[in-house]
Amino acid sequence: MMYDLAIIGGGPAGYTAAESAGKSGLKTIVFEKNVMGGVCLNEGCIPTKTLLYSAKVYHTAKDAAKYGISCDNIQFDLAKIIARKNKTVRKLTAGIRAKMTEAGVETVIGEASIMDNEQGTIANEGIGIYCNDTLYHAKNLLLCTGSETAIPPIPGLKETAFWTNCEALDNKEVPDSLVIIGGGVIGIEFASFFNTLGTKVIVVEMLDEILGGMDGELSALLRNELTKKGIEFYLGTKVTSVDNNRVEIEKDGEKQTLETSKILLSVGRRPVLNGFGLENLRLDFLGNRLKINEFMQTSHPCVYACGDITGFSLLAHTAVREAEVAVGHLLGKNEKMSYKAVPGVVYTNPEIAGVGKTEEVLQSENIPYTVKKLPMAYSGRFVAENEQSNGVCKILEGADGNILGAHILGNPASEIIVIAGIAIEKGLKTEDMKTMIFPHPTVGEIIKETL
Amino acid sequence: MMYDLAIIGGGPAGYTAAESAGKSGLKTIVFEKNVMGGVCLNEGCIPTKTLLYSAKVYHTAKDAAKYGISCDNIQFDLAKIIARKNKTVRKLTAGIRAKMTEAGVETVIGEASIMDNEQGTIANEGIGIYCNDTLYHAKNLLLCTGSETAIPPIPGLKETAFWTNCEALDNKEVPDSLVIIGGGVIGIEFASFFNTLGTKVIVVEMLDEILGGMDGELSALLRNELTKKGIEFYLGTKVTSVDNNRVEIEKDGEKQTLETSKILLSVGRRPVLNGFGLENLRLDFLGNRLKINEFMQTSHPCVYACGDITGFSLLAHTAVREAEVAVGHLLGKNEKMSYKAVPGVVYTNPEIAGVGKTEEVLQSENIPYTVKKLPMAYSGRFVAENEQSNGVCKILEGADGNILGAHILGNPASEIIVIAGIAIEKGLKTEDMKTMIFPHPTVGEIIKETL
Repeated sequence: MMYDLAIIGGGPAGYTAAESAGKSGLKTIVFEKNVMGGVCLNEGCIPTKTLLYSAKVYHTAKDAAKYGISCDNIQFDLAKIIARKNKTVRKLTAGIRAKMTEAGVETVIGEASIMDNEQGTIANEGIGIYCNDTLYHAKNLLLCTGSETAIPPIPGLKETAFWTNCEALDNKEVPDSLVIIGGGVIGIEFASFFNTLGTKVIVVEMLDEILGGMDGELSALLRNELTKKGIEFYLGTKVTSVDNNRVEIEKDGEKQTLETSKILLSVGRRPVLNGFGLENLRLDFLGNRLKINEFMQTSHPCVYACGDITGFSLLAHTAVREAEVAVGHLLGKNEKMSYKAVPGVVYTNPEIAGVGKTEEVLQSENIPYTVKKLPMAYSGRFVAENEQSNGVCKILEGADGNILGAHILGNPASEIIVIAGIAIEKGLKTEDMKTMIFPHPTVGEIIKETL
Repeated sequence: MMYDLAIIGGGPAGYTAAESAGKSGLKTIVFEKNVMGGVCLNEGCIPTKTLLYSAKVYHTAKDAAKYGISCDNIQFDLAKIIARKNKTVRKLTAGIRAKMTEAGVETVIGEASIMDNEQGTIANEGIGIYCNDTLYHAKNLLLCTGSETAIPPIPGLKETAFWTNCEALDNKEVPDSLVIIGGGVIGIEFASFFNTLGTKVIVVEMLDEILGGMDGELSALLRNELTKKGIEFYLGTKVTSVDNNRVEIEKDGEKQTLETSKILLSVGRRPVLNGFGLENLRLDFLGNRLKINEFMQTSHPCVYACGDITGFSLLAHTAVREAEVAVGHLLGKNEKMSYKAVPGVVYTNPEIAGVGKTEEVLQSENIPYTVKKLPMAYSGRFVAENEQSNGVCKILEGADGNILGAHILGNPASEIIVIAGIAIEKGLKTEDMKTMIFPHPTVGEIIKETL
């Protein structure tokens, strides 16, 4: 049996590609070693957002007096929160499986291994993939094995019962205190969650600001908000050793010891390149990354790679778009992958989101720009729904009125950032966006106001 | 003293025009008879959204158990809710006044009256406007006197202490029962608010469905949701008479009496065309509406009219855009007013929003279209944040892949509808929107999924 497309990995890239290919009539098979949906659905985006929403409900109840509502004895039940998270994940993974069936895609749960194809020619025999004692052949192969938590060589870490995102999502009780090593998106979202539930949270970040890659000014503003809520931050700080209840840190040559009930490690993720016979394809690398062209093809024209395996963006929505581009190319379309308008969102409360370039990047690339900036309180709806809090909308405009980047701190930044993303991707200028009618009163109006 | 632009009415059209004109160097004066901000800010959009947000907080607390959160003795304090609403309004009206000052706009609080200009020529002496015992002259005039609650000739209404939106926004206690006459946006938003606070609400609507002008299918779905929450609806039903505690209705010739503690009247709004000397300008009318061209000019080239006075859209965001077009024209720009993508939003819980054409309109105009429709549960974030509720995203596609309309039931429809609005206004087709990267997980992704 010869498949048109075999896909290794059933995360956002894999299931998007599979559905699209299947619906387009390609005979498609997906190999997934755990559960369809990947990290995003099972231990990433969706579970964290479910927990964070419970935390938001808890916070809303505690904060209700500001809006004329009172309630007593506000409690959370972590077991129930986790159970609801699991139920949500089950519902959505069932949805993915239904989509696969509907698109006529074959799904195999098992560890796939790419055979050594040196002897055969792909044109005749296809690429061999071995899984669950069966050999499959496919004309084309899409690699979307994703990424895994990077484990840095910190002395003592191997002997420590630390958490990664996986364990933090399935823990049974709220720790009294938590040191989070790494102040990126994952670290900060968990910091927000556990802080809301009453844990004393300390974040240790090696760089000078949290959320590297996001707009620095807004990240600092968010950090201040989180500091007010009781989270402690150590920036420009290295972890020198850990054990189960202690984290040794060093800043500017000075050492300090943090006592903690628990440690959460979130220093980054790295592509999964081993364990599935990738070496048998003899693909080209650029440094430690797979070489990929704008159609998501590797150096082998029948082999594509999408999502975290490229080590580039590490975002589910990038993976989805890459998968669309790859399958499109396979079907004869020539749409190229564009990274101009990939939004980044941190689902803290308040949310922070950005799309396009940051000031930091524009400066490093010597691109001239103008900053347009307004407090979120310029939006009437923001004021109506956010008592005693503010935020910022910052838009970076290029010399010819084009929009280079947009960065928003304040709810619901996650939902409105795509408005600026469309402008950036489609080349709509400030003047074009100003003629748009935004519904009133909405928070999204702030984008028009800022422009 | 000759002004470049005099504006009668300080609502969304008036203050937007004033700020824009002032900043562009036009000597500008605004006459407002009550408080800057108009109905929208003082007794419409903003105050209702503030109350509805308090209701949402109350509902969130009552519903918290679904998300693993418990709390007891949940109460609302209407006096505090109203006080917060007033504070929010004060904050935002202060913001408007600050904008006027910053833009160098003169503001006069008082009833303006246009003088009879028959004798003079506007070129030399300008249009005369009399206010607070002073005569002002302006080269150009912008009319934005807005609209007022329509009072239909229902027997007994004059003798009844009924509410309009104004009284409902400032009441001191929650009525046991409330009959709302008119199931348009205002009626339904108040129905949602009082129902959440425990009032027994009955809505009487003359047409066969609530929310005329919105997508009929989604309006019916929302009506079902509200019915489940305890609101009673009488559709296709006429009110034949009222007194303080009784509403006589008639449906298909059958009469019935509804007992009620209070009556809220919301059968529509009509343009304010009297009381400020409009007749002295001798402008052309089309039926009972002012004749306006695509630059918002009346039949007199120096007189513009924007907002509810045109009797056309009755939405603050339409008024804002019309004001931008009018001032732009005055400054020599030739941007025309476009009504292609005016969003409509109802801030019930769940929200409903639409932009572009409805199926009803497309059918009546004989425009061919395809319906693309998905349950909101296709969005992972929607599932994560909306326990035991669903919604619909419906997009109407034209024959050549252009987007004709989009209609969404489910939170936060208000914030994401503009994404479809941009597509409609800028002529982006389905294929263009599908190449966009929507952040994951967001509810807005449903638009891409649906396409």
